[in-house]
Order: sequence, then structure tokens, then C-alpha cells
Amino acid sequence: MPDIDKMTAAVHAYVEGFAKGDPAIIAALFAEGATVEDPIGSPIRHGRAAIHEFYTESMQTGAKLTLNGPIRVGADHAAFAFSVNLHFGGSDKHVDVIDTFRFNDNNEVVEMRAFWGPGNMHGF
Amino acid sequence: MPDIDKMTAAVHAYVEGFAKGDPAIIAALFAEGATVEDPIGSPIRHGRAAIHEFYTESMQTGAKLTLNGPIRVGADHAAFAFSVNLHFGGSDKHVDVIDTFRFNDNNEVVEMRAFWGPGNMHGF
Repeated sequence: MPDIDKMTAAVHAYVEGFAKGDPAIIAALFAEGATVEDPIGSPIRHGRAAIHEFYTESMQTGAKLTLNGPIRVGADHAAFAFSVNLHFGGSDKHVDVIDTFRFNDNNEVVEMRAFWGPGNMHGF
Repeated sequence: MPDIDKMTAAVHAYVEGFAKGDPAIIAALFAEGATVEDPIGSPIRHGRAAIHEFYTESMQTGAKLTLNGPIRVGADHAAFAFSVNLHFGGSDKHVDVIDTFRFNDNNEVVEMRAFWGPGNMHGF
């Protein structure tokens, strides 16, 4: 089983990766064969290289994350609510998202799913 | 695909079911063959009858739900953060939880997963 404190730390590192605009911080949280589904229902990205590329693109909008409430951690999962704050096209925008992370025994994220849809986008 | 407004309404009905202490309101939201995993990592309950029984037991603590922030809805999923407020043993307690619901094309919940663990329990 992964470690509760390390799963919690991974979520904080994920937020920090956006704050620093450094996709490598985030890619390092994932296992080599991890998957990312963001948003839910979209094609799944496979593997750390594809994940690194995805976050590199995501950060080009200047996206910063603000956690909304406590991180939920149980068994091999973490779930957390947050806002993605963006500034482009001359205005502030935000997207309300809930992510779930599933971890392996090495405390690496093996599956990330991001729950949000058009109704969660504001200011676009 | 399920309907965004109906998925959102199902989440509000779920909260209302607890407010009214009526497990039938909640059981009616689920498909006949639905599954419930609460908390994440625990044995999965299968079928509407088992789900009705589970919520009947849950409500014996007087549990009431308070949503924390907007409901996230995308594709065939809803995700929402909330606190479960309880009063027993002479004190107020709460548990911070994130639930995900997956819906079928009839807007019934086919899979519910509740993300929380010991670190999310307060006042126990």
C-alpha cells in the first residue's frame, strides 16, 4: 500500500509544479506506465513522456492551482478539489476541477482522472 | 450519454435524501445493478437492494451532507466534495469526502466511489 503522507505530499507537489511552471516536477510524480484522463471522458494519455508533454502544454496558459478544501486520502487513492486559474486573452478565467490519483506501492501516481466539464469553465 | 442537468439534479437529490433521512430517495438514484465503494478500497456493494441497506445504516448516525464547492460534471460522471456532519456520543463530528458518480444513459448512477480515509475524520 502507498503511504498516506507521501500521497498527500504528491498532491502538494502537483500544485507546486504549476506554481513554478515546471512540468518536470509533475511528470516525476507519475509511474512510467501511468495514465492521465483529463477531462473525464477524453482520450487517455499513456506513459510519462506523453504526460510530460501534456503538462508542458497545460502550463502554456499560465495555469495555477488553488486547492478547495482538504485532500481526501484513503487506501491507494487521493482526491482533491481545486480551481485552475488562468489569465489569457485579457481576462481572468477559472475552471473548477476534482482530480483523483491512484498510487502504486512506490507512491507513484499510476492513474489520474480529472472531473470537469463545460459547466465548470468560467470567464471563457 | 447522460444529461448534465439530470446528473447535477441527482447529486442534489442525494444530499436531500440525507437531509430527509430517507434512504429510498437515494436508492432510487441508482441503477438496478449499480455498485457502491465507500470508502475507497473497501468491499464493493452490488445492486440496489444492498445499496438501500447501506444507506439505511448510514443514516442511523443522523448523517447530513454539506456540499463544499461546485459539482463537477463531465461526460458520464459527476464529482463533488462535501462534509458529512454527524452527531452522536454527545459530540459533533464530521468527515470530509469526495464522491464520484458514473451514470448510464438513463441518468441512473451505475458506480459510486467515496474517497476518504482516517485522516478525513474529525471529532471521533
